[in-house]
Amino acid sequence: MAEKKLVEQITPMEEDFAQWYTDIVKKAELVDYTSVKGCLAIRPYGYAIWELIQRQMDDRFKALGHENVCMPMFIPESLLDKEKDHVEGFAPECAWVTMGGEEQLAERLCVRPTSETLFCDHYSRVIQSYRDLPKLYNQWVSVVRWEKTTRPFLRTREFLWQEGHTAHETAEEAMAETEQMLKVYASFCREVLNMPVIEGQKTEKERFAGAVSTYTIEAMMHDGKALQSGTSHYFGDGFAKAFDVKFADRNGGLSYVHQTSWGVSTRLIGGIIMTHGDDSGLVLPPKVAPIQVVVIPIASHKPGVLDKARELTERLRKVVRARIDETDNSPGWKFAQYEMKGVPIRLEVGPRDLENDQCVLVRRDSGEKTVCPLGGIENTVAAMLDDIGQSIYDKALENMERRTYDCASVEDINACRAGKGDGFIRAMWCGDRACEEKLKEECGISSRCIPFAQDRIGEKCACCGRPADKLVIWGVAY
Amino acid sequence: MAEKKLVEQITPMEEDFAQWYTDIVKKAELVDYTSVKGCLAIRPYGYAIWELIQRQMDDRFKALGHENVCMPMFIPESLLDKEKDHVEGFAPECAWVTMGGEEQLAERLCVRPTSETLFCDHYSRVIQSYRDLPKLYNQWVSVVRWEKTTRPFLRTREFLWQEGHTAHETAEEAMAETEQMLKVYASFCREVLNMPVIEGQKTEKERFAGAVSTYTIEAMMHDGKALQSGTSHYFGDGFAKAFDVKFADRNGGLSYVHQTSWGVSTRLIGGIIMTHGDDSGLVLPPKVAPIQVVVIPIASHKPGVLDKARELTERLRKVVRARIDETDNSPGWKFAQYEMKGVPIRLEVGPRDLENDQCVLVRRDSGEKTVCPLGGIENTVAAMLDDIGQSIYDKALENMERRTYDCASVEDINACRAGKGDGFIRAMWCGDRACEEKLKEECGISSRCIPFAQDRIGEKCACCGRPADKLVIWGVAY
Repeated sequence: MAEKKLVEQITPMEEDFAQWYTDIVKKAELVDYTSVKGCLAIRPYGYAIWELIQRQMDDRFKALGHENVCMPMFIPESLLDKEKDHVEGFAPECAWVTMGGEEQLAERLCVRPTSETLFCDHYSRVIQSYRDLPKLYNQWVSVVRWEKTTRPFLRTREFLWQEGHTAHETAEEAMAETEQMLKVYASFCREVLNMPVIEGQKTEKERFAGAVSTYTIEAMMHDGKALQSGTSHYFGDGFAKAFDVKFADRNGGLSYVHQTSWGVSTRLIGGIIMTHGDDSGLVLPPKVAPIQVVVIPIASHKPGVLDKARELTERLRKVVRARIDETDNSPGWKFAQYEMKGVPIRLEVGPRDLENDQCVLVRRDSGEKTVCPLGGIENTVAAMLDDIGQSIYDKALENMERRTYDCASVEDINACRAGKGDGFIRAMWCGDRACEEKLKEECGISSRCIPFAQDRIGEKCACCGRPADKLVIWGVAY
Repeated sequence: MAEKKLVEQITPMEEDFAQWYTDIVKKAELVDYTSVKGCLAIRPYGYAIWELIQRQMDDRFKALGHENVCMPMFIPESLLDKEKDHVEGFAPECAWVTMGGEEQLAERLCVRPTSETLFCDHYSRVIQSYRDLPKLYNQWVSVVRWEKTTRPFLRTREFLWQEGHTAHETAEEAMAETEQMLKVYASFCREVLNMPVIEGQKTEKERFAGAVSTYTIEAMMHDGKALQSGTSHYFGDGFAKAFDVKFADRNGGLSYVHQTSWGVSTRLIGGIIMTHGDDSGLVLPPKVAPIQVVVIPIASHKPGVLDKARELTERLRKVVRARIDETDNSPGWKFAQYEMKGVPIRLEVGPRDLENDQCVLVRRDSGEKTVCPLGGIENTVAAMLDDIGQSIYDKALENMERRTYDCASVEDINACRAGKGDGFIRAMWCGDRACEEKLKEECGISSRCIPFAQDRIGEKCACCGRPADKLVIWGVAY
């Protein structure tokens, strides 16, 4: 009974995108709502996706010399207060611990919303000389931000993430690190999550609290909305001055370190759902699919079928994440269930296949069926997984390109939005914050980024008409 | 300058064991104290040890069918209140969140001290039928207990751990899981941490809050004190009844699930330090050593030395975690530093070695030096690492056995403790809690466990003289 509910129809995407998303999140068994508002339980299937993201991203961090650490989850209020912009940005959404055991605390502690202050505090003690630099630290933890409205993976009060925090001798080095890590995120999204992203810089308005500059990767969801998928911040020596992080430099003097921070979160799972999913459920990028191939024996009571299915599963397991479903549910039910869960390839094997020494492979992304000889099935499957990754990337890129519009004025933007709905709007901007705010008010869009790939599509600000030399991507953000 | 401090002398173990421990923790760069009392920053070297523990233990969990999940870090007070014994045990040491953003919360939230309540709440929603069982869940998170006195790794207000929480159809299955996981911990300690442990059951007094029975592995530290290193709890259906976790059973009725939980923490790192360390610093078990072999070029300005050292490092890296130290610190300084950090093998290569196609291997555990031919060095090193693991295990076992004493009465125990200091005391016990409390008061020892390996060393309770059929291990606990 309980299992049946799983494969009930989900709301079609075109009918109600938000409901479609919520349906997938529940029915693919990614999360469970809990008795703490805005906090989720991540279920085994959802957590397995996160573990695959984590493992592969961590390998990339370590290959670049980063080391993992773990700072405390609590920040004393006085520590949070040290950097003015930072505290203003985060204090309003902190959860505060005021009691320890039965006693009122002398100073309240904030549950980390992000850990710049803790890293700076630590750096002020462990960095003495230029020989101690750079410090290339990262941590995989959860953070808390007391959001008013929440949605699974996209915005929750507690979420899992990684936060890199680095300290360098020079501004140049720190800036190079900031840019490097944005590139790591961008290539990870493309290569591992098969998710196209645009790289660029945030405007001053959208900058991280306390940063000199913030860089971002922006992805486009199925519905044309933008998802900020990762950010990398350059701090200059602002935090170092606030926290007194000095070192004996090469010239015999004392200098402040230059810092960066960068992070991605479980929000990426929301991005995967809304980039690749369809009306049958999840479509997982092969590299983060907990099950890459599910083996379904057809008419498994017939002689030899189950043995062959098991043998194939074992063979496949040596090269991919394969699993067999031997339960007594009907094949049709199983097909629907693994489609809901976004398993990239379904392998069917039945009595007729046995006779012909073959099996049937069904792709989740296209539904395409292929009859394949069992000899070399490992290679066939591995190649098909690669092809699925490429195909879903291409499809997502096509969606992003199709929904990107060039506009020259407020009227233009409003007409475009009225006619075509959400998407990326490319428009020139003079750099004035007032124009940015006006576009928000009058067109309902915010600046997503000043893309690195600058394309001069006009000479005038789409808002005020004054000379403009910045191309900005605007959109409606999750 | 900063580097020099690292290899300053540490306090000898015999002089002041507690200070020796603190010195190692600091000078091997495992942790940093933070501005939050009782909460530590785990530094890269310390965290790398934890990652190695985590990875290898997680593999063992998964091989037995366990899946990772992630529950929220907050527990609403009303949820914690549901199981009477449990809340009594934990509420006094909870950290409480009372404000979210600028608003007072309607119900205060406890930062999880352990997550039975959250798992039960989740299970009550996701378990409907016997087909949904067993649920074999685990999570790797940090928890908070507002301890009054703290020591790095051994007792901190926040600590990292894993907590397994499982739900089963029957009491027998749940009990088998409880026992199985204790065995997993015991064999992990022995095989991976080279740490001998005694397996047994806790007395009622020492039982986990809310458990029917608690099992433990107890290790002995260098100073004769006991370290509870992992616990596994059988809950029966007590939590299930409190949280209404019912399922449609095989007989068409509704039954409560039977549950377990089990955990180990970063405390294991404290165990490693105090089981294997010596007056030169850490001695790491090879399987969790972030650097297994450090390559030190001697007279590296001489032709060929550095190249050969690099070549050897690359060769070794294919089979072990090897690192070269090319800094301009003196060889003597480097030797001391890697001894402090507990690196199992130091490989020295200098001009004379080059001539003879050899190198020198120095074992951290024994100080023994061996001149080895470079041909097949990978195998030599791998075999030596295995041998080091076995040797430090044997040494620790010898310490444990040497410091284990059989006693028949309170006088006996006091004489033994006065003459020999801390250790494991084996004494018969009648099962009366009053006797347990009396031994605590009069002899300063607490029951560590009723070991599975029961050895009848007498007929009478060492405390009251009444008939006794339980052998108990007593000791002074960290």
